[in-house]
Amino acid sequence: MLKGVFAAVLTPMRADLAVDRAAFARHCRRLLDEGCHGLGIFGTTGEANSLSVAERVAAWEALVEDGIPAEKLLPGTGACALPDAVTLTREALAVGAPGVLALPPFYYKHVGDDGLFAFFAELIERVGDDRLRLFLYHIPPMAQVGFSAELIGRLLEAFPGIVVGTKDSSGDAARIEQVCRSFPHLTVFAGSERFLLDTLRWGGDGCISATCNVTAAQSRRVYELWAAGDPSADAEQAALTETRGFLEGFPPIPGLKALMRERTGEEGWAHVRPPLVALDEDSRAALLGSAPV
Amino acid sequence: MLKGVFAAVLTPMRADLAVDRAAFARHCRRLLDEGCHGLGIFGTTGEANSLSVAERVAAWEALVEDGIPAEKLLPGTGACALPDAVTLTREALAVGAPGVLALPPFYYKHVGDDGLFAFFAELIERVGDDRLRLFLYHIPPMAQVGFSAELIGRLLEAFPGIVVGTKDSSGDAARIEQVCRSFPHLTVFAGSERFLLDTLRWGGDGCISATCNVTAAQSRRVYELWAAGDPSADAEQAALTETRGFLEGFPPIPGLKALMRERTGEEGWAHVRPPLVALDEDSRAALLGSAPV
Repeated sequence: MLKGVFAAVLTPMRADLAVDRAAFARHCRRLLDEGCHGLGIFGTTGEANSLSVAERVAAWEALVEDGIPAEKLLPGTGACALPDAVTLTREALAVGAPGVLALPPFYYKHVGDDGLFAFFAELIERVGDDRLRLFLYHIPPMAQVGFSAELIGRLLEAFPGIVVGTKDSSGDAARIEQVCRSFPHLTVFAGSERFLLDTLRWGGDGCISATCNVTAAQSRRVYELWAAGDPSADAEQAALTETRGFLEGFPPIPGLKALMRERTGEEGWAHVRPPLVALDEDSRAALLGSAPV
Repeated sequence: MLKGVFAAVLTPMRADLAVDRAAFARHCRRLLDEGCHGLGIFGTTGEANSLSVAERVAAWEALVEDGIPAEKLLPGTGACALPDAVTLTREALAVGAPGVLALPPFYYKHVGDDGLFAFFAELIERVGDDRLRLFLYHIPPMAQVGFSAELIGRLLEAFPGIVVGTKDSSGDAARIEQVCRSFPHLTVFAGSERFLLDTLRWGGDGCISATCNVTAAQSRRVYELWAAGDPSADAEQAALTETRGFLEGFPPIPGLKALMRERTGEEGWAHVRPPLVALDEDSRAALLGSAPV
């Protein structure tokens, strides 16, 4: 059910850095209209860890109130603190999300698989809800802590039907292929649409990507061509990979927000929470000069 | 006022992983009795980032109710999310703590000084309390994100009387010396008592250290010998550095908790929150065989 093209959704913010509720709902609606199968809200791109637990919960409740179907949402529920992860997971289930994307606890470094296994075992036990569908969010460039293939295997074996998927943002094609082939029943999303076609061919299921905030339609075309067995999928993937190249060399979240501001004219795209910093005028001009506006 | 020997206080926990209130107060009382000038609660050693904001606030309120003087507390108030850092800082001031120890936001990596400056500027503005005394918690091995000397200088200049100190857990003697000498009015705590005497001689002010949970008395002796200009300070420092060596090769928080359990017989030392893992029986035996019990 949860598969295909997902945007790692940007979170628009007002000048006071609160979530811009109206712009957020409009953006989610637009992404679905453009072709996203679903929405990965409040991941790295969504500045989730820069928002409090209460802010995240309020924002996704508002999204559903504002007409975004809960069944399209894959909320990020990762947190360093077990009680925060429990609260976020329960609230995501309460709002009707069909799955959650969970970071490992990311403060302590060089922790072993036993400790990470214990964290997720406690989380699943404390949430105590058979509806839980957990996607493991592997993003070592940011979290530093990640999911080894062995750990994924242990979690799948211990919690069948609960641990059901992963998002792999390692940026490492060989690793994504290994995970797809090692765990044929695991739902595997690549963390970038540049791996979309490969991931589907390796037996994976799609992508959850920051650049899908602006490449949703093109990413969806790759998916549909693959699903139809159309050989032009390769050419479309190559074009998609080229399209998303505009962001190379720019900080991705401020860069994508600058582009969304240009596209929509909405003020809600002007702001990022510190420690991120909005693009300066020169960078903005350079980005917009090469971007697929 | 805030200077000298501080333990980076361990947080005892019950079997359900809640903070063991009684054991926490007893431990803080014991550390003060053994010679700590103050208590760095809810830092890395205190598993702060494994606890929710509400748990941290409730625990330090309980400490003060249980008789630990608020003026001895330097609570950790670091968080990735600005609103969490604001809440923790306000609550620390409300309970009467004379200073707070603030991590940089640590999820996003490779952020620049401008973004970190913006984070602390927002924090100080939103807390909006002249009583605030902010200590910058530099611990790159864990947080990855840290405070450059340039950033410390910018913050000192922009917020004189508010940004007043740092804890340097770089483990790098040259860096600690540089910070001490570059900012003579900054209160500098080394992150380990092995740098205590050197730090004092470089113009710094003390240490905040995990191993001070068990070396408080000896660390205090080094401090007093230095304060008295007694040349035997060097020999005492050498002995202290040797004492704290027992933890080498063991995971520090589970190791120190195992030692505290042995010393006190209290159940509250048996537990760590995942992703940390308690020592297994062999490691425990090896540690206790070499520890200063």
